[in-house]
Amino acid sequence: MSVAEAVATVAGMLRARLSHVALGSPDVDRARRFYEDAVGLRPDAEAPDGIVRLGLGLGAHVLELREGDGIDHFALEVSDAAGLAGLERELARRGVATRWVEPGGDHPRALSFTDPDGHRVELHGRIDRSGEGLGDPGRRPVRIHHVTVTTPDVPALEEFYVSTLGFAVSDRMGERFTWLRCNAEHHTLAIVEGPSGGLDHLCFEISCWEDIRTWCDELAARGVAITWGPGRHGPGNNLFVMFDDADGVHVELSCEMERFWDDRVEYPRPREWAEDPRTVNLWGPVPAWREA
Amino acid sequence: MSVAEAVATVAGMLRARLSHVALGSPDVDRARRFYEDAVGLRPDAEAPDGIVRLGLGLGAHVLELREGDGIDHFALEVSDAAGLAGLERELARRGVATRWVEPGGDHPRALSFTDPDGHRVELHGRIDRSGEGLGDPGRRPVRIHHVTVTTPDVPALEEFYVSTLGFAVSDRMGERFTWLRCNAEHHTLAIVEGPSGGLDHLCFEISCWEDIRTWCDELAARGVAITWGPGRHGPGNNLFVMFDDADGVHVELSCEMERFWDDRVEYPRPREWAEDPRTVNLWGPVPAWREA
Amino acid sequence: MSVAEAVATVAGMLRARLSHVALGSPDVDRARRFYEDAVGLRPDAEAPDGIVRLGLGLGAHVLELREGDGIDHFALEVSDAAGLAGLERELARRGVATRWVEPGGDHPRALSFTDPDGHRVELHGRIDRSGEGLGDPGRRPVRIHHVTVTTPDVPALEEFYVSTLGFAVSDRMGERFTWLRCNAEHHTLAIVEGPSGGLDHLCFEISCWEDIRTWCDELAARGVAITWGPGRHGPGNNLFVMFDDADGVHVELSCEMERFWDDRVEYPRPREWAEDPRTVNLWGPVPAWREA
Amino acid sequence: MSVAEAVATVAGMLRARLSHVALGSPDVDRARRFYEDAVGLRPDAEAPDGIVRLGLGLGAHVLELREGDGIDHFALEVSDAAGLAGLERELARRGVATRWVEPGGDHPRALSFTDPDGHRVELHGRIDRSGEGLGDPGRRPVRIHHVTVTTPDVPALEEFYVSTLGFAVSDRMGERFTWLRCNAEHHTLAIVEGPSGGLDHLCFEISCWEDIRTWCDELAARGVAITWGPGRHGPGNNLFVMFDDADGVHVELSCEMERFWDDRVEYPRPREWAEDPRTVNLWGPVPAWREA
Amino acid sequence: MSVAEAVATVAGMLRARLSHVALGSPDVDRARRFYEDAVGLRPDAEAPDGIVRLGLGLGAHVLELREGDGIDHFALEVSDAAGLAGLERELARRGVATRWVEPGGDHPRALSFTDPDGHRVELHGRIDRSGEGLGDPGRRPVRIHHVTVTTPDVPALEEFYVSTLGFAVSDRMGERFTWLRCNAEHHTLAIVEGPSGGLDHLCFEISCWEDIRTWCDELAARGVAITWGPGRHGPGNNLFVMFDDADGVHVELSCEMERFWDDRVEYPRPREWAEDPRTVNLWGPVPAWREA
Amino acid sequence: MSVAEAVATVAGMLRARLSHVALGSPDVDRARRFYEDAVGLRPDAEAPDGIVRLGLGLGAHVLELREGDGIDHFALEVSDAAGLAGLERELARRGVATRWVEPGGDHPRALSFTDPDGHRVELHGRIDRSGEGLGDPGRRPVRIHHVTVTTPDVPALEEFYVSTLGFAVSDRMGERFTWLRCNAEHHTLAIVEGPSGGLDHLCFEISCWEDIRTWCDELAARGVAITWGPGRHGPGNNLFVMFDDADGVHVELSCEMERFWDDRVEYPRPREWAEDPRTVNLWGPVPAWREA
Repeated sequence: MSVAEAVATVAGMLRARLSHVALGSPDVDRARRFYEDAVGLRPDAEAPDGIVRLGLGLGAHVLELREGDGIDHFALEVSDAAGLAGLERELARRGVATRWVEPGGDHPRALSFTDPDGHRVELHGRIDRSGEGLGDPGRRPVRIHHVTVTTPDVPALEEFYVSTLGFAVSDRMGERFTWLRCNAEHHTLAIVEGPSGGLDHLCFEISCWEDIRTWCDELAARGVAITWGPGRHGPGNNLFVMFDDADGVHVELSCEMERFWDDRVEYPRPREWAEDPRTVNLWGPVPAWREA
Repeated sequence: MSVAEAVATVAGMLRARLSHVALGSPDVDRARRFYEDAVGLRPDAEAPDGIVRLGLGLGAHVLELREGDGIDHFALEVSDAAGLAGLERELARRGVATRWVEPGGDHPRALSFTDPDGHRVELHGRIDRSGEGLGDPGRRPVRIHHVTVTTPDVPALEEFYVSTLGFAVSDRMGERFTWLRCNAEHHTLAIVEGPSGGLDHLCFEISCWEDIRTWCDELAARGVAITWGPGRHGPGNNLFVMFDDADGVHVELSCEMERFWDDRVEYPRPREWAEDPRTVNLWGPVPAWREA
Repeated sequence: MSVAEAVATVAGMLRARLSHVALGSPDVDRARRFYEDAVGLRPDAEAPDGIVRLGLGLGAHVLELREGDGIDHFALEVSDAAGLAGLERELARRGVATRWVEPGGDHPRALSFTDPDGHRVELHGRIDRSGEGLGDPGRRPVRIHHVTVTTPDVPALEEFYVSTLGFAVSDRMGERFTWLRCNAEHHTLAIVEGPSGGLDHLCFEISCWEDIRTWCDELAARGVAITWGPGRHGPGNNLFVMFDDADGVHVELSCEMERFWDDRVEYPRPREWAEDPRTVNLWGPVPAWREA
Repeated sequence: MSVAEAVATVAGMLRARLSHVALGSPDVDRARRFYEDAVGLRPDAEAPDGIVRLGLGLGAHVLELREGDGIDHFALEVSDAAGLAGLERELARRGVATRWVEPGGDHPRALSFTDPDGHRVELHGRIDRSGEGLGDPGRRPVRIHHVTVTTPDVPALEEFYVSTLGFAVSDRMGERFTWLRCNAEHHTLAIVEGPSGGLDHLCFEISCWEDIRTWCDELAARGVAITWGPGRHGPGNNLFVMFDDADGVHVELSCEMERFWDDRVEYPRPREWAEDPRTVNLWGPVPAWREA
Repeated sequence: MSVAEAVATVAGMLRARLSHVALGSPDVDRARRFYEDAVGLRPDAEAPDGIVRLGLGLGAHVLELREGDGIDHFALEVSDAAGLAGLERELARRGVATRWVEPGGDHPRALSFTDPDGHRVELHGRIDRSGEGLGDPGRRPVRIHHVTVTTPDVPALEEFYVSTLGFAVSDRMGERFTWLRCNAEHHTLAIVEGPSGGLDHLCFEISCWEDIRTWCDELAARGVAITWGPGRHGPGNNLFVMFDDADGVHVELSCEMERFWDDRVEYPRPREWAEDPRTVNLWGPVPAWREA
Repeated sequence: MSVAEAVATVAGMLRARLSHVALGSPDVDRARRFYEDAVGLRPDAEAPDGIVRLGLGLGAHVLELREGDGIDHFALEVSDAAGLAGLERELARRGVATRWVEPGGDHPRALSFTDPDGHRVELHGRIDRSGEGLGDPGRRPVRIHHVTVTTPDVPALEEFYVSTLGFAVSDRMGERFTWLRCNAEHHTLAIVEGPSGGLDHLCFEISCWEDIRTWCDELAARGVAITWGPGRHGPGNNLFVMFDDADGVHVELSCEMERFWDDRVEYPRPREWAEDPRTVNLWGPVPAWREA
């Protein structure tokens, strides 16, 4: 049994991590330059399918850009690739259509389905991430960390991800916000009240508080405004800043998120946070677009 | 309503902090020199009662030393001093004898009682802590943080502190260890399986991970051996090191403990940790005296 | 010639630093507890005049609190105490009434006058600040740094402080905001558009970016909300956070402010900043109360 | 309009950054090993033209080495490549001969000319710098930052770069030293009194003060002596150290340089610094070769 | 003379650094995944000889894995490759058989021999290490640092490496442990009492104390237990942590090791340390497997 | 046996630390203001003997100033006060006259004598240093660390301190410089070639490299020039900066000095360093006054 498997064996719970997010953009070239110049991602070799793929260092892509609008899909790398067949059966049992797709870039064959809210999800096996470490962590993200999607019915979509895929709920803020985990990090997927099938934000992990200052100064030097933070979220306890990409998509940088040890702790039902601005920023300030 | 009161109003839950721990020692002068030289505490003016009191900077004392052995008592500073009368009635209702005592040093009149296991506890109102900040935090503790007491019956003693005084349980490790909070910190009192009425360790807070290196080097230069750590506890997630005082009492230095926000979060029943060495040190090493 | 004098001799320019700010409060005791608990100031010995004075460590007071409302006065410690007589004559020549007052606390006899906008100012000689260093800089301010006052006519009040007292203008944002220096720091006094004779905010210096995180977390633990920041000002280039005291007075914590070397550089006329939110926060977010 | 363009549009002012410096060396192989071993640059694939090109991580080259002596040329990457035609016309109008060259390595076609003092300059469009981030910033530079050239007539050469190319003057020290900017950094080109057509030093940016210690220790371990610093320059306020390459060329490492915000601030005429050693090192020490 | 040579010329003393360690493993694929996932090494392109080679960033390999058990050999990169012929003669003179081997990967032709205790050693010339810097130093080692081998007769094996190859002894702990240097670092090879021809541990250098926390947390998140430390060794004064690889081989991470300046200091005979647990950890804790 | 005694028992070797240095000054008031304003020392209460005593925080004095010139004496706090009688006899045996003096301030009765070179030395027992910790370590020294005296005959004076008082020699640079220890720090007393009975410099310890930047910036803001450094000494390996006090006395700030563990290591004869500028600054620069 490998080391990774040692912590992966938690009965009934999904063990996975976010591998990429795919966005549509009305101006793919402009969006690509933003992620290169401001976020420090690095383009893959030209792909014949016309999709722009960007990664960290020499690693596989973590972001896809194509003509369009909003979120196209997100993908999860599952620790136990052999278990994909079981997920396929479970989805079928619940009447969710699935199919196997061949993604471009370096990602392996993936099981694809659409959640009840219209978000497309891909599940696949192990990716060689050894190239991701080839980057200066002070000026580019360490990894892609989580994605937050929107739905008018948060409890229903939470129920789908918990019962079908095996996510665990870490925290909830009433019926408006829920945070779900599939590894030691407090959340890899979050769901917030909003339009059906929408994207609230995507998040990259950075190293530490010291780097938050560097990022804010470098973004300012490139003319990119911080829209929220620096601050500290209640659920997850992570430090964060947020800004918008060239299409107005919210992008978060985060560090020091709370960890869960499901292999040795029995966590009771989720913590329930007050519907209060201080929940989403323990320090205080919350922008208008978050409070609504 | 004052600022402090704003966070103090959580129905039914004690809001307090540790104010001092009182130890017996077979050689008070040797013990006092240890806490001065190795821990960086500062003696109060000579007291007529022969008890040595030591504080942080120019602050009120946080440690008392007297002829004897083991823990004499510990004291809690209660946010709502007016509520002491209610605690007095509640203790009486349960048949716990109480009395008011006049402690030496700068501490106010305190309500004193003995827990079912024989530990004496003092409860009192506000102390002026403005003198505590007058110290170099890299070389002396920031504050006294928690005390861990021993009992052969952990669930019973936990029940006493929860139902009588209003402590909340943050975490448990089976029936062998329990961590209790009375403010935002994960625990101010902990209870571990051991002799009746005993002391497991007392803990001082220090500033940060960087200071742990400084402390280890300075303790080494003074001939004091670290007995455990540096490491990271599972319950509380705090970084720590431990060493023994001149009488063999375990002393902990700790930082970055997890915080609870009881005024805006509904926490479910406690997390239950495996009875596993990794619970008390997520990083691994556990000394023989802790594993037993 | 002493060391301090070596840098003090810049022809015609005031060499001074802020020594204290005096505020009125409808609830002096509540205000005092705020500055003790949340800001870490330390009360002076009881004063017979009923005014509460608070300092840093064992230093002389930097804040006065008395029954009332708004700013009562602020005081400047002048490097060249012998020059006070010259300032007295200059003020008289311009028809500004002056008088000598005996402040309480440890501050020396001061020359007092009222600016055209109604702010009372005290000027005095050297204070022994050796007690200020007796504090843990991670949990209490390093020093009182600047005061920002309000007026409906910014250019007129700027002109008064420049021509009468010898302040130098470092930066301007149109006719709405001006920053004035009287030592190496970018500003010790700032003037912003607002009610006549009012206070915009007072600022304490802290050590570094790392401490901003500690302060934000500690303020959150005490229930005090950050109202702006962390961010970085354009004029002064300093990192900052702001929150309100118990009476709603804006309090700033700041570090890493730009320095001026008037003894060896000839600075041209002030830089003129755009009237743009990014001027007051290079990183982006600006709260409603600042934008108005 | 892209993000980068948003800050690039400042009427009449050049927006550019240094892309490479080309040096002659009597022993190219020895020089190359110095920049690899001591500075951490990485050689490009073998070039057919016999010129050694070295870059940061997998980025395009930032340094060229060829048989010869002194500076061969330096190159600027211009934000607005379309504007090169305008620069070509402006240079022609002033009687400066230009030609288009095809540099080796990954750099695009460049407009080349010689300044009145004999320095050859290349101007070209956008370079993909995404490979530059692939390096450990603690042991190799973050980027090439500025070049300082020599001339017997500083005001004349300053005038050339300002009026012809659109550089802005940030600071001056009499007629002996001038610092010019073409982006947010305080200077990208500096001019100091010295031989006609000479090179004073070239500078790489590093991350932070902490790295200065690492660099000094690593250079010492490789037998390379620091010749100046660590110190802090007055103009630019940057922290620095300097050492000589294998041919005696002065090399600087620098961080935390002052930034200018020309898109939102109107800067008056340059600051004028005293001809005083403290100008070039606010902290004090200045080596004999700088004072001369 | 190049820079590197400047410090390399110390009469009679070997100038070299560790270039790789080759291990046998009963499960090469499992071992490889451990070094990729937990240690952050990066696999070379597939080798036809079936040996797995792993490096740092894009650098040449630092670890070889093949079917087998224990240490296969270790290799040293010698500063003065021309001196290999002299070493070959010296070994022959002492009756040690040598041969020239062609290692796989990017390493040059090497002189191979077996020490009296059965450890195979390779000596070779310069390796291009410019690819090693292409890695995030917070999450992967900076370089391979030293190897500690076992023998029942420590003084004899020490004598072999000193007199034959020219290592210098930095420190000794009786006849049980000896630390040998061949560059500025306190030791590149160490010898400890144990089985003949065995491996005690291999060590990677990391950047700093701050990274030790990150490593411990990341290893914990991957289910890898620290077996010793964090601590500080007496000999070498380096900070360290240790854990086991998938085959139980001890792996050390270390930083801040003491440096020696043999080109300008005459070091007397080695320091002699007490056979005391505090020698191998100045801070205190020593695990059972080290004390034995 | 107390903790401090545990490490103090090294046969024949002095265990002591520097307690104060006494300087003469032609302008005591100017000197005092320098040490208050620039170094951050704090004056004791007025002494009837007209001597100015300055300490750290609320600690006992570490510096004495009186009318005069050069060094008046320095004092050592001896761990084993009972051993002073033995030292008295030993000095008498060697024909060195001694007497007991009553120093002012808080220092105890001291044994006083004059070394062969004319430096007066005081030896005394334990001082309560608990008040020293009451200072912000980023802006004032942590403690007084060592004193370096001058003599035309370095070996003779070294021999005196070793054989009479029991100092151990840590390092030597020919017959021009020698470094002596009496506790874990590499040196508490150093001797350098120069005028008989003179003072080369006195040194305060500060916390860390980060503070060196703060000190340099703060000294610059007060008009005090750094005369040497930042750099790193070979002997002691400490980081340092130096500046002159108001009378031209060299003052050093130092951190991270090498430690010796005489209770568990047998150190051979001293290391012998080359008479080379790099010995006194591993990084390179050495000012004219040090090279002479």
